[in-house]
Amino acid sequence: MAKGKVYIVGAGPGDPGLLTLNAQKALARADVVIYDALIHSRILGVIPETAERIFRGHRTKRGALSQSQINRLMVRLAKQGKQVVRLKGGDPFVFGRGAEEALELQRNGIAFEIVPGISSAVAVPAYAGIPVTHRALNSSFTVVTGHEDPTKPEAQIDWQSLALNGGTMVFLMGLHNLRGVCERLVREGKDRTTPAAVIQAGTTPQQRTVVGTLETISSLAQKAGLKAPATVVVGKVVGLRGRLNWLEPGPLSGLKILLTRTRDQSSFLSELLTQKGAEVIEIPTIEIAPLPMTGMVKRWLRNLQSYEWIILTSSNAVDLLMDNLFKLRLDVRSLGKAKIACVGSATAKALKAFGLRADLVPEDYK
Amino acid sequence: MAKGKVYIVGAGPGDPGLLTLNAQKALARADVVIYDALIHSRILGVIPETAERIFRGHRTKRGALSQSQINRLMVRLAKQGKQVVRLKGGDPFVFGRGAEEALELQRNGIAFEIVPGISSAVAVPAYAGIPVTHRALNSSFTVVTGHEDPTKPEAQIDWQSLALNGGTMVFLMGLHNLRGVCERLVREGKDRTTPAAVIQAGTTPQQRTVVGTLETISSLAQKAGLKAPATVVVGKVVGLRGRLNWLEPGPLSGLKILLTRTRDQSSFLSELLTQKGAEVIEIPTIEIAPLPMTGMVKRWLRNLQSYEWIILTSSNAVDLLMDNLFKLRLDVRSLGKAKIACVGSATAKALKAFGLRADLVPEDYK
Repeated sequence: MAKGKVYIVGAGPGDPGLLTLNAQKALARADVVIYDALIHSRILGVIPETAERIFRGHRTKRGALSQSQINRLMVRLAKQGKQVVRLKGGDPFVFGRGAEEALELQRNGIAFEIVPGISSAVAVPAYAGIPVTHRALNSSFTVVTGHEDPTKPEAQIDWQSLALNGGTMVFLMGLHNLRGVCERLVREGKDRTTPAAVIQAGTTPQQRTVVGTLETISSLAQKAGLKAPATVVVGKVVGLRGRLNWLEPGPLSGLKILLTRTRDQSSFLSELLTQKGAEVIEIPTIEIAPLPMTGMVKRWLRNLQSYEWIILTSSNAVDLLMDNLFKLRLDVRSLGKAKIACVGSATAKALKAFGLRADLVPEDYK
Repeated sequence: MAKGKVYIVGAGPGDPGLLTLNAQKALARADVVIYDALIHSRILGVIPETAERIFRGHRTKRGALSQSQINRLMVRLAKQGKQVVRLKGGDPFVFGRGAEEALELQRNGIAFEIVPGISSAVAVPAYAGIPVTHRALNSSFTVVTGHEDPTKPEAQIDWQSLALNGGTMVFLMGLHNLRGVCERLVREGKDRTTPAAVIQAGTTPQQRTVVGTLETISSLAQKAGLKAPATVVVGKVVGLRGRLNWLEPGPLSGLKILLTRTRDQSSFLSELLTQKGAEVIEIPTIEIAPLPMTGMVKRWLRNLQSYEWIILTSSNAVDLLMDNLFKLRLDVRSLGKAKIACVGSATAKALKAFGLRADLVPEDYK
């Protein structure tokens, strides 16, 4: 039996283009993927059809797998010899409980690898035109979990040193504690006019940014109706957004588009639509399947050269024709001198990939 | 004229597998790439042959382009309508002067995009088995530039608040100031037994890690002969390395291998060797070029069906044959019933991609 292994993989902050090549490779080879909420469908699309997908559920909602259930599941699957990907938003070692999961694997003698991901801490501000560092403004930045309530006395965070520190502060998932955090920082001595920004759903089509100061940002974010997931940035660098806000909303911004094409055909269209600002959800409702290889189909394929014209109506038709020829241990030479007509330039391109030039492509084929 | 644009792209910390899909796409479309030192040859390999490559030089060495020269160059190239990639190690907004470059572009009315990269701050410790966060150990981490000398009075860094802060500290490029930084932190009140690690060339085959405490780490790193680029981590999380050091040196670890195959053929072998721990440098010394399309070559191609056997000796031969057929507006149907022999399974695979099944593949072909 192959030796099981767990890959703890960061999926990045939202934009599927921020996936790394190593993450893509780990997903493409997985037997099982256990994934968190907020992972883009285009990233999940990299997972092979044959692999098992286990959605962990929304952490705060009913039915979600608990941390100990996930730990046991990873160990059990790896012991069965499976290649397991544990897919997490952002980076697995930035407040993602990745360290806890890795320790659990180590305790159980399971081999594991860490595949870092782009963290929201830097990329989300960047997509909002806010660099976490600028040589003239700061020499450090601090990334803080937003899950700690600053009004509780047992807090681990040293709010005083945080307030004194001149560097940029980034709070991850910090929307529900925002008012408390801002008030606490001011009480500990941070200037109430320090610029601050809240970015909702950064790097995704739902990205929205509100800018204010430590004194005003909480009310402004509430008034604007910003929702989780949100990233909060505090510091002078927020002021650069006025000049560095490079991300223009595309013409399809705000639209949610459902693609129902086959999985293979969706990705190109999906990318074009995403580039124009649309949010694309791929739900393939069509599946292209070959005709069963009956005696009649075999006779057709073996006698292709007896036809004068062969008409191929889609790139799927081209792929299936070639598959079937190979299955019969034939190849394109079976076409003999038959001429080929095809519908559309995409079909002609598919033909060309198989060494065939379409003899006829109609100009109009709607 | 097309509108010029500059993509400020992060290349990640060293491992070429940590490149993002967006970075790969920007490089593949570039007209010009201006790149910094320490970018892996496999990442540069994504740049099209036709694109211009400008090496910025080692910042500290003679002949390197200054920051203002780079700024002027980017503006000039973009004004010529070029798609320019400004490729930087790590993430462009983490102490990379990316913000300064973006501001310069904005001042000159040049369109730009930021493509975040994996920052050394999180990924380098991760590759050394050190998670920058663990729920039971810290609720924040601070990333500090190692370029500031802590003995100078005008330092921007608030060393006192840094020392008081209970979170993890990561110093980037911090080897030359290491002793001063450790002494300063202890003087400001940080416990001298706080665990610390120095990681040389993290995520690359040259990665080496030394672990100690704030008191000992500087001497230990020096004794071990660690060199720049180095990442320094200070905090309790360093103690997890004993259990989480997942990165095993491969059997080829420490070997530097030069690949002289053609560029197209290198990548697969290069990846296999890298996976086993070797450092691979690709310098293609062979170029496969087509025969000039003379009258004789044309006659051969037009009369392919008159031959009984056609022997193809490499996948390059297959590609060139198909290219030339298409140039003459012919296609694989010209082969007629000629039989095909080929040397090696890779050639057979290349044939299959063109819809052809090899009639003969010798078992032994060394």
